[in-house]
Amino acid sequence: MMDRILILHGPNLSLLGRREPEHYGKLTLPEIDQRLIAMGREMGLEVHTYQANGEGQLIDALQQAAEWSAGVVFNPGGYTHTSVALRDAVAAIRLPVVEVHLSNVQAREEFRRHSLIAPVCAGSISGFGWRSYLLGMQALHAILAGDG
Amino acid sequence: MMDRILILHGPNLSLLGRREPEHYGKLTLPEIDQRLIAMGREMGLEVHTYQANGEGQLIDALQQAAEWSAGVVFNPGGYTHTSVALRDAVAAIRLPVVEVHLSNVQAREEFRRHSLIAPVCAGSISGFGWRSYLLGMQALHAILAGDG
Amino acid sequence: MMDRILILHGPNLSLLGRREPEHYGKLTLPEIDQRLIAMGREMGLEVHTYQANGEGQLIDALQQAAEWSAGVVFNPGGYTHTSVALRDAVAAIRLPVVEVHLSNVQAREEFRRHSLIAPVCAGSISGFGWRSYLLGMQALHAILAGDG
Amino acid sequence: MMDRILILHGPNLSLLGRREPEHYGKLTLPEIDQRLIAMGREMGLEVHTYQANGEGQLIDALQQAAEWSAGVVFNPGGYTHTSVALRDAVAAIRLPVVEVHLSNVQAREEFRRHSLIAPVCAGSISGFGWRSYLLGMQALHAILAGDG
Amino acid sequence: MMDRILILHGPNLSLLGRREPEHYGKLTLPEIDQRLIAMGREMGLEVHTYQANGEGQLIDALQQAAEWSAGVVFNPGGYTHTSVALRDAVAAIRLPVVEVHLSNVQAREEFRRHSLIAPVCAGSISGFGWRSYLLGMQALHAILAGDG
Amino acid sequence: MMDRILILHGPNLSLLGRREPEHYGKLTLPEIDQRLIAMGREMGLEVHTYQANGEGQLIDALQQAAEWSAGVVFNPGGYTHTSVALRDAVAAIRLPVVEVHLSNVQAREEFRRHSLIAPVCAGSISGFGWRSYLLGMQALHAILAGDG
Amino acid sequence: MMDRILILHGPNLSLLGRREPEHYGKLTLPEIDQRLIAMGREMGLEVHTYQANGEGQLIDALQQAAEWSAGVVFNPGGYTHTSVALRDAVAAIRLPVVEVHLSNVQAREEFRRHSLIAPVCAGSISGFGWRSYLLGMQALHAILAGDG
Amino acid sequence: MMDRILILHGPNLSLLGRREPEHYGKLTLPEIDQRLIAMGREMGLEVHTYQANGEGQLIDALQQAAEWSAGVVFNPGGYTHTSVALRDAVAAIRLPVVEVHLSNVQAREEFRRHSLIAPVCAGSISGFGWRSYLLGMQALHAILAGDG
Amino acid sequence: MMDRILILHGPNLSLLGRREPEHYGKLTLPEIDQRLIAMGREMGLEVHTYQANGEGQLIDALQQAAEWSAGVVFNPGGYTHTSVALRDAVAAIRLPVVEVHLSNVQAREEFRRHSLIAPVCAGSISGFGWRSYLLGMQALHAILAGDG
Amino acid sequence: MMDRILILHGPNLSLLGRREPEHYGKLTLPEIDQRLIAMGREMGLEVHTYQANGEGQLIDALQQAAEWSAGVVFNPGGYTHTSVALRDAVAAIRLPVVEVHLSNVQAREEFRRHSLIAPVCAGSISGFGWRSYLLGMQALHAILAGDG
Amino acid sequence: MMDRILILHGPNLSLLGRREPEHYGKLTLPEIDQRLIAMGREMGLEVHTYQANGEGQLIDALQQAAEWSAGVVFNPGGYTHTSVALRDAVAAIRLPVVEVHLSNVQAREEFRRHSLIAPVCAGSISGFGWRSYLLGMQALHAILAGDG
Amino acid sequence: MMDRILILHGPNLSLLGRREPEHYGKLTLPEIDQRLIAMGREMGLEVHTYQANGEGQLIDALQQAAEWSAGVVFNPGGYTHTSVALRDAVAAIRLPVVEVHLSNVQAREEFRRHSLIAPVCAGSISGFGWRSYLLGMQALHAILAGDG
Repeated sequence: MMDRILILHGPNLSLLGRREPEHYGKLTLPEIDQRLIAMGREMGLEVHTYQANGEGQLIDALQQAAEWSAGVVFNPGGYTHTSVALRDAVAAIRLPVVEVHLSNVQAREEFRRHSLIAPVCAGSISGFGWRSYLLGMQALHAILAGDG
Repeated sequence: MMDRILILHGPNLSLLGRREPEHYGKLTLPEIDQRLIAMGREMGLEVHTYQANGEGQLIDALQQAAEWSAGVVFNPGGYTHTSVALRDAVAAIRLPVVEVHLSNVQAREEFRRHSLIAPVCAGSISGFGWRSYLLGMQALHAILAGDG
Repeated sequence: MMDRILILHGPNLSLLGRREPEHYGKLTLPEIDQRLIAMGREMGLEVHTYQANGEGQLIDALQQAAEWSAGVVFNPGGYTHTSVALRDAVAAIRLPVVEVHLSNVQAREEFRRHSLIAPVCAGSISGFGWRSYLLGMQALHAILAGDG
Repeated sequence: MMDRILILHGPNLSLLGRREPEHYGKLTLPEIDQRLIAMGREMGLEVHTYQANGEGQLIDALQQAAEWSAGVVFNPGGYTHTSVALRDAVAAIRLPVVEVHLSNVQAREEFRRHSLIAPVCAGSISGFGWRSYLLGMQALHAILAGDG
Repeated sequence: MMDRILILHGPNLSLLGRREPEHYGKLTLPEIDQRLIAMGREMGLEVHTYQANGEGQLIDALQQAAEWSAGVVFNPGGYTHTSVALRDAVAAIRLPVVEVHLSNVQAREEFRRHSLIAPVCAGSISGFGWRSYLLGMQALHAILAGDG
Repeated sequence: MMDRILILHGPNLSLLGRREPEHYGKLTLPEIDQRLIAMGREMGLEVHTYQANGEGQLIDALQQAAEWSAGVVFNPGGYTHTSVALRDAVAAIRLPVVEVHLSNVQAREEFRRHSLIAPVCAGSISGFGWRSYLLGMQALHAILAGDG
Repeated sequence: MMDRILILHGPNLSLLGRREPEHYGKLTLPEIDQRLIAMGREMGLEVHTYQANGEGQLIDALQQAAEWSAGVVFNPGGYTHTSVALRDAVAAIRLPVVEVHLSNVQAREEFRRHSLIAPVCAGSISGFGWRSYLLGMQALHAILAGDG
Repeated sequence: MMDRILILHGPNLSLLGRREPEHYGKLTLPEIDQRLIAMGREMGLEVHTYQANGEGQLIDALQQAAEWSAGVVFNPGGYTHTSVALRDAVAAIRLPVVEVHLSNVQAREEFRRHSLIAPVCAGSISGFGWRSYLLGMQALHAILAGDG
Repeated sequence: MMDRILILHGPNLSLLGRREPEHYGKLTLPEIDQRLIAMGREMGLEVHTYQANGEGQLIDALQQAAEWSAGVVFNPGGYTHTSVALRDAVAAIRLPVVEVHLSNVQAREEFRRHSLIAPVCAGSISGFGWRSYLLGMQALHAILAGDG
Repeated sequence: MMDRILILHGPNLSLLGRREPEHYGKLTLPEIDQRLIAMGREMGLEVHTYQANGEGQLIDALQQAAEWSAGVVFNPGGYTHTSVALRDAVAAIRLPVVEVHLSNVQAREEFRRHSLIAPVCAGSISGFGWRSYLLGMQALHAILAGDG
Repeated sequence: MMDRILILHGPNLSLLGRREPEHYGKLTLPEIDQRLIAMGREMGLEVHTYQANGEGQLIDALQQAAEWSAGVVFNPGGYTHTSVALRDAVAAIRLPVVEVHLSNVQAREEFRRHSLIAPVCAGSISGFGWRSYLLGMQALHAILAGDG
Repeated sequence: MMDRILILHGPNLSLLGRREPEHYGKLTLPEIDQRLIAMGREMGLEVHTYQANGEGQLIDALQQAAEWSAGVVFNPGGYTHTSVALRDAVAAIRLPVVEVHLSNVQAREEFRRHSLIAPVCAGSISGFGWRSYLLGMQALHAILAGDG
């Protein structure tokens, strides 16, 4: 039986492909999700995806994921730097969570250099565009396989 | 006639009893709510309870409470340290609000030591598990009784 | 054909007129909206208004505005100082956005002196009560007219 | 047999009732102590009280309390924010200690927002005037009863 | 009788039109002053203008304005961020003063994000080029009209 | 009848004359006290003096002074920069208190530049050796005479 | 022969008596100057006074004072906290300079708590209204008399 | 022809397998290198590896890599947080460099939360033990393939 | 004739042996004092010991030590990080003082990393349990012997 | 035809030769100016010099220099660390400006270590006494010659 | 059999005796090493010594010491305050390491007050010249003897 | 006989001419060295040059220079901002050292604005490309000639 995982997209990621394509790539979020679902299937992962702009909705999604999924690949977007509540949710659900970012957040504004979410995640990947999700999925797959 | 009060639970408190029970106790949120409703009734308080993970939902709840309740016992959870909007809501509704926390927040990470909500509350109680709510309800009761 | 613009009200502004009238004026939010719609019409602007307490709802509104409006007058309220996600939304939609505040935020608490939203706006206006919206609408009108 | 507890008052609390009564209430310290002793007796607690202005005297009192008492309700007053030595004393005696404050310290000057004592206490209560002591005594009672 | 107001320009504004026109617009300071005088007249304001590079000269001008004018629209330029003396002058003269900036100062260097002048002004407007003065004049006009 | 005042010397001032005379002068504390008593008598002040090394003792002395004296000239020594408890005592007794220092504290180590005591005093004098006390006494005398 | 001294008034002090009299007293600057000149004469000091709003003018005055005066009583006003250039002038002229302030600057805004001028002065006096000048003149007189 | 890449190990990584194996895994550095070389070969990459404890040696290695390699996977170890010189080297060589860390550096001490190297890298991966190198190699492979 | 030295123990050290023995060792303070007295005698030092919890008492002890002792080994405990008054006492008595700590203070909480006392001591020793006193006594012995 | 340049001296430099000669050298400002004029002539530069104590006067001088000079050697003295207005003037005139200082400012007080002016200059030279001007003139000469 | 220990000297210690002898003593490093070797032999320690200026060389030496030595006395010199890589090496080798400094580092520049190395050492000794090494060796000897 | 001096190049300067030529110029390091040697010879200086990437190697070079050279022109590159050990080496060798930088470091990232090396140098020059070395050599020449 395949492990089920959640790929969780935070605020503004619904704009992907339409927003600054020269910066974030030309793929839309549905296109990325399709790729990830297909690639996950090849690895033996049943991939579910969800996007929301609200902090509360993302907490809801994480709490529900604790009921059915084996792990989460999470791009917290702008909440990365400000949300203690999301951090608490990640810590509370006790699933392996991999933090991913499209852009290299450390190369941007000072206020983006500190992540409240990362310390409660298994690990963190940033800077590789949509492939950050793919790398995150590969990392999560190895964790779930106990393949340290 | 009994005073009506709101006990308002912030993000992730829905996980109580299931999340780190050795840390937060074995009681679930519904069990705690039942106790508080019963204990409130003994004190002559009609206790209503509500939980939400979203900052906006909590602001909505506070604004609505201004229409029907005499005061609020509020556990803002992770929003304690980051939400100017919730602070503004507490200040605006002009009800007595008592801030409560299950854990002793001052003994935790540095970023949990500062509360944006406390300065606009009547007072603050932290560290006594579910009993923080009970103590908060007792404090609110005395305030409503004008029993300084 | 008239330009369509969005006047977007952040958290707690629904309380206007009822909350600290000596501080924020006696006009309610619907009354202010009516004035702005009327005054906008005189300038040749079709004004739409929306208020929400939730960060996610405001991001949703901004993203939708990108589909139909020519610009936004935005009062981010308490999110001004804490929301990277709203900042990202403002930056992403690539509409001219004018930040407005009822009160003179620089004269208030230290934590209100820094705006995360302002740097991605066209400009900022604060301290003139409901007239901050009017001035913001006038500024936006000139920007849309290319009337530098 | 009744549990014996210490209610320990820090610097300047001897002035209660005489100092800024509109701010701190009209009860003098002896009057408060009498109330607490009586209320403690009802709960089954033998309450002893002590006040001192000196940091060293308060450390002495805490160390002696370790010999005879089951727990302490402690208002460290102005030492709350500056005394590492008192913190060490509280940590060393290994009794449950509940920190209390008459006023809502988080609503006052910046230098009062950080407590060196709280992190080594069981919990903290502030803002309810003399009733902060009563709530602290109730909290301590529950702790001693193992009544989590 | 028309209200008389002062439009006060701080350091380097004499270079307008000649300095970085792509950034600050092609209008020279005399051209802007003429527009503002004409537009003021339409609103029923007698507009006087003055520019100086010296902090002391600007303080002199503010103190003299207290003798003859009903309010000031003030662009403190580089002194915005460093001059306690100008702040004291604005506070002392007890006229309504509206702070204006050509550029969106919050979008520039860190040291430009904090205004010492704003907290003692009625309000603040920035980012709209020479139109910031116009909007400031409109705001001042409403204040003088008691038209809240 | 003469006003009675307290001249209160904080920690280490007992060493005056013996400690770094090239820095603090050759007069011992008893010699300075004698001068101040004599000079006070000429002004019509009955001067009492007290020195203690302990924070608690100084708080005791301030609280007792509230019973018999009209004002205090206070050199808090090293507690100037660290004692919230002494600050609270000065604020609570509601006597005019003048802070004095022998040396020019602003010219010394960084940690001496900030006074916790000064904000609750009538005023502050530093840098004039034993004459700082004399000037403080003169300032207090004028305050008591209501001679603004 | 009498020592000649300069009493130097910084920015905005020309407004004394007219500006916030409940705060700064009802005496105008000329009235204060007259008193100080008369009182100085009694002490054997020939007192000259000067006021300017400009930082450069105050530096000019200090440099010229080095040619004819024996010492300076200086109220740097708002430049106290921001002027390295004035600090350098005070240090360079090598006259004894006494810093004075009308109000208790340590009790005001955070940015007024640090003086750049004090470390290069003989001493500092603040909080006693116009009498701060008188006390400063007495302190300077003792310094000139070598009367430590 | 295969792309040649450098896997560069910073200080203390020579201890892998021997140092805190429960924390960093049981594989030694040579064993990890062998795996990476083999896995690289499968992807069509010719992998070279190098380890050094010296900042200068690592700069030398990066500069030499500019002569022969197509990109670098770099674990800067303890230099991550302190070395401007290594940052300059990474920026100067103008190869794609992927920063990797074995542990989740954001979950460790405060001084490890800031990377001087990351802002000049293509992206960053941390927290997956030796697999961080593998993920880094996959990311670099995609970059070299222009496979955004 | 033997040099006489003072070994001065600050707050809470009276609890040694009883407090966290797994952390601070099983020896009580009297047992440590006996060892140090005996070992001092072998080195030719007459060792006196004193413990107090009060800052003022410790200042008193230091000032008295200036009358009879040749140097001090001082464990300021929790006052290390907060007491300017103790620092002044150490500086004033002009005896060689060696600061010692049982635990490695640099490895503990952030607020313990900075010593106000160390800069005015001859040197500092921490982390070796009761042997820190012995090493401090050996260091002091060499200083007194002029044996650099 | 020779390039014309301005050598601009900021506050207190008029005191050179008279002020702390052991520190700043024995040459007076006119003597230095004569040397620089002569040396400039040898290089083919027509050197003009100007000194002022006022921030506004220096801004005036910079703005006028934009009309007639090819570049500026500028010693901003105490304004280096505090003047945003001077920074703006330097940036606005778009001439090459070389910042010079007599003393090694980085070796002095902390508040002198940061230059607001340097970032908008071509380069910076400090620590070589009057020769800093000469080196600055040589640097400017090479810039004007396009002799990179 | 004797325990073998390493005495490790960081950057610039090779200059001892030649560099500022009035500050660091007249003994050269070889002379100190000889003393320590002889004194170590008396205690039953086989002492090896090594000095290097390079951070990498020191890390190499620490890693090699893990192969043959029982503990290290380490003077990290200027790397004390900046080297995370050396800290990691000390932590990784799991030998007892005693940090020593010739001078009292807490009495020097602010940037020398924080040690990155101390928190991972057994303890720390500073201020006693070459005797700091001797005291460190004695401390290490007691640790190796399990002689707590 | 000619003075011998060292021109010491820090990390990454070996890349000059090849690295960002539009930024750092087209000259390679050997070409610059040749120019400086030739120009030095004209001034009567025997110029030696050395480049290294390692902090330890640069310390070695400085210590050796103390044996044979009269002064150093030093570009510490990225170590400027982080190396206490290099600072100690410069201070220890007691030669005149002139700090130079190719680029205007004050105009770059915040972390480049502070130099640990400058305070122990004779002076500092930055922003003039390879000519910074030439100006540094001229400055050093004047220092060696005692030609203040």
